[in-house]
Amino acid sequence: MPLSRPNREAMAAIVGHSNVIENPKLFGPFTDDFTDHYKSKPLAVIRPKNTEELSEVVKYCYAHELPMIPQGGNTSLTAAASTSKEDCQLIISLTKMKRLLEVDPDSDTMTVESGMTLEEVQNHAREADRLFPLSFGSKGNATVGGCLACNAGGVNVLRFGSMRDLVLGIEAVLPDGRIWNGLRALRKDNTGYSLRDLFIGSEGTLGIITKAVLKLYPQPLYMQIAYCGVQSPKVALELLQKCREEAGSNLTAFELISSKPIERVRKYLPDIKVPENLTKTPWVTLIEISSRLVSTAPSLFAVLEEAFLKGWILDCVVAKSTKEEQEFWHIRESIPLADRTAGGSIHSDISLPIAAIPEFIEVTTKRLQERFPWLGDSVYGHLGDGNLHFNMVCPEHPDLPYENEEEIRDILYSEVNNFKGSISAEHGIGQLKREHNYRFKDSIEIEMMEKIKDAFDPKWLLNPDKLLRRPSILSEDH
Amino acid sequence: MPLSRPNREAMAAIVGHSNVIENPKLFGPFTDDFTDHYKSKPLAVIRPKNTEELSEVVKYCYAHELPMIPQGGNTSLTAAASTSKEDCQLIISLTKMKRLLEVDPDSDTMTVESGMTLEEVQNHAREADRLFPLSFGSKGNATVGGCLACNAGGVNVLRFGSMRDLVLGIEAVLPDGRIWNGLRALRKDNTGYSLRDLFIGSEGTLGIITKAVLKLYPQPLYMQIAYCGVQSPKVALELLQKCREEAGSNLTAFELISSKPIERVRKYLPDIKVPENLTKTPWVTLIEISSRLVSTAPSLFAVLEEAFLKGWILDCVVAKSTKEEQEFWHIRESIPLADRTAGGSIHSDISLPIAAIPEFIEVTTKRLQERFPWLGDSVYGHLGDGNLHFNMVCPEHPDLPYENEEEIRDILYSEVNNFKGSISAEHGIGQLKREHNYRFKDSIEIEMMEKIKDAFDPKWLLNPDKLLRRPSILSEDH
Repeated sequence: MPLSRPNREAMAAIVGHSNVIENPKLFGPFTDDFTDHYKSKPLAVIRPKNTEELSEVVKYCYAHELPMIPQGGNTSLTAAASTSKEDCQLIISLTKMKRLLEVDPDSDTMTVESGMTLEEVQNHAREADRLFPLSFGSKGNATVGGCLACNAGGVNVLRFGSMRDLVLGIEAVLPDGRIWNGLRALRKDNTGYSLRDLFIGSEGTLGIITKAVLKLYPQPLYMQIAYCGVQSPKVALELLQKCREEAGSNLTAFELISSKPIERVRKYLPDIKVPENLTKTPWVTLIEISSRLVSTAPSLFAVLEEAFLKGWILDCVVAKSTKEEQEFWHIRESIPLADRTAGGSIHSDISLPIAAIPEFIEVTTKRLQERFPWLGDSVYGHLGDGNLHFNMVCPEHPDLPYENEEEIRDILYSEVNNFKGSISAEHGIGQLKREHNYRFKDSIEIEMMEKIKDAFDPKWLLNPDKLLRRPSILSEDH
Repeated sequence: MPLSRPNREAMAAIVGHSNVIENPKLFGPFTDDFTDHYKSKPLAVIRPKNTEELSEVVKYCYAHELPMIPQGGNTSLTAAASTSKEDCQLIISLTKMKRLLEVDPDSDTMTVESGMTLEEVQNHAREADRLFPLSFGSKGNATVGGCLACNAGGVNVLRFGSMRDLVLGIEAVLPDGRIWNGLRALRKDNTGYSLRDLFIGSEGTLGIITKAVLKLYPQPLYMQIAYCGVQSPKVALELLQKCREEAGSNLTAFELISSKPIERVRKYLPDIKVPENLTKTPWVTLIEISSRLVSTAPSLFAVLEEAFLKGWILDCVVAKSTKEEQEFWHIRESIPLADRTAGGSIHSDISLPIAAIPEFIEVTTKRLQERFPWLGDSVYGHLGDGNLHFNMVCPEHPDLPYENEEEIRDILYSEVNNFKGSISAEHGIGQLKREHNYRFKDSIEIEMMEKIKDAFDPKWLLNPDKLLRRPSILSEDH
């Protein structure tokens, strides 16, 4: 269904005709979901070029009760940037708003529009001899706004924190179209409720983040990376503690990976070079030590010495060049693609108290295998953050996991709940996990969230049906 | 005015008679404000012993419309834990709720009740061979709950962040008395609005925080501390950048102090040992480098080498023992007391974009001196966080600053505003800065805060008149 003529003309008057996309043949980049499972059907895609245009678009939509789906790089893994109903919602893409507004190396900050991709942010920081540490596989498409909306994580959270920790101030367009300028470059500011923190992680349901002041760090000049094979997650946890003690904040990544997903990388993505040792032990850890200066860097071998002596490390492959370092990370980052290529892949993104992880993996794997013997597991994640991607595959019968997805997730999330974990560590809730979240989250928390949504967006027009259920009394309208 | 008989009996039935304090002679620790300028006049002080008792107290107060002032160690510098009206409000002291609930060295977490003091937290962490890094002068009285309520900072924020960054989960009693259990020990959890972050820094206006899961770090075994004299804040800023580049995350503190407040420490607190060199240069920096292991620690001299060669450092005193390290910090931490002892002291707690600090100090000092030639300045603070304590004293005429306080603050805060800073970096707003905050904060932000307060506490009974103005339609009631 197309836009009504008055709506089309109003939108075109604000953003220009070429930025009101109505031809479904051109929808692709905005409607094909990153997981390949979801296809949006919007009325149109609107592409404002700056905050002021976006503000006018939102004001119009608010007045005319048009539901809006804010979208960055469209790489959500929870359908958070997809339509929730067909032919009645507008996708508002921020990808034309990607200006670099300021780099301030003295304050170690950078101000950007929220449509800039994560990779572009990293590059601009590097040009100023600084580091923007957030990083993950889809950085070439994921935008600053999307990273803020779901408080994205990735591989360096252990040392630098998630997106929330890397942002000082934000500007946002509120549901009624007004512009909130919270673009402060302050390290400390205690002048009331942390609205910044409320917007970060709100998945575009309270406002559309348009600009951000990002924190920069000194570029590390020294880095050492190794894959260390271990017998079990329990040993990996002891190794993590040892590394934290010895290397302190120079420990910048600590990943735990089962050998099974690495086998799949080797089998399904044969172009990727996987050292033979990596599948000789049931589990491997990927350990990264980095430092600003070589002279003050802890040696990886010194850090690992005691672990070798204790027999915790069964095997070890150290990257011998920057190229090998990149290859080592590439193996880790290719696991999701290998799982998808294998077939029957069900993805998850959970977190747990770190000390509970070994027992959680044992209990949950056992329960799933007993119920679904044909299900292959693919467990890996950021052990230092307590964040696991507890995934499942079934290359032999790729339909079986999807047919049983609800029960699989039920077993997984029930155990997450038993171990006091979270069903979403770094991907957010969106549409795909909304009902699970209602089921497992404290009802008082849901109530508080609904109160805030109601107070900020009484018509529930901004990213409806994401994270929270639209109240039924409003749902009739659309 | 005493409690009414039914209210007294209801309170005593919940917490026991001995924990309902009505005798004003026993009020002292709960009513004498930390700044010595403010004296609370409550109906009574109620001291619940656990979350359940507190929940019942709040339920009763909510039903009977009794305004409540939550209080930790009563060390607020903004009268945030004091009554705002006489003889009609209850102080609810959390100092009896101070149990250590769990220490988990594997997950590097510790769970405590919120009435535990910061110093007790530090000691429990040390006993588990861990570090809880938040620290400041009043740590012996300040409680976890109070630190959370105002998102306290202190001397190690540069490396470890403020209280917000050091907490994983919280439990809180809501304004209607229900208990919200958000006590998760998770490093990552993106399952909706960050209610945790909303409560932290809300100064007890949205709920009373009763428990917290705190983050622990490895104890640093190596530390080097030095006072380095510099010519100006501008040179100090260059020195800071150099230290960040060379030492990275091993730079754990970087303080800037004018020689004037150090002179006052020497003059008014003669028991404190102040090395002579510290007042030979117009400014000094206090630099702390620390590391888990000696073997991987950067040498302070290596870090400072280039700064010496460039002539940035005019003088340097290095602490030669742990005792001297403590003495060095003690000088810095004694400045507020020295200023108060000198007389006519007006305190502030502002933050600025770091790069703007040298110009801000110059412009603001000049404006204040032109208007009030008798006013002495006392500028010091956490340069690495952009946080200054821009204080004023007048030992000769101690009344003059107070008589002109409004105009002094007006000049100061106007310049803070011009330089895009914040009028409260780490002390919060409370009662004392509320009207200034209304004046300088974006009205959209004030509106969003009021909406949230309204949604959470529609009767505005929890810590009324702090941070936000009670709407006049409600104010008539009390």
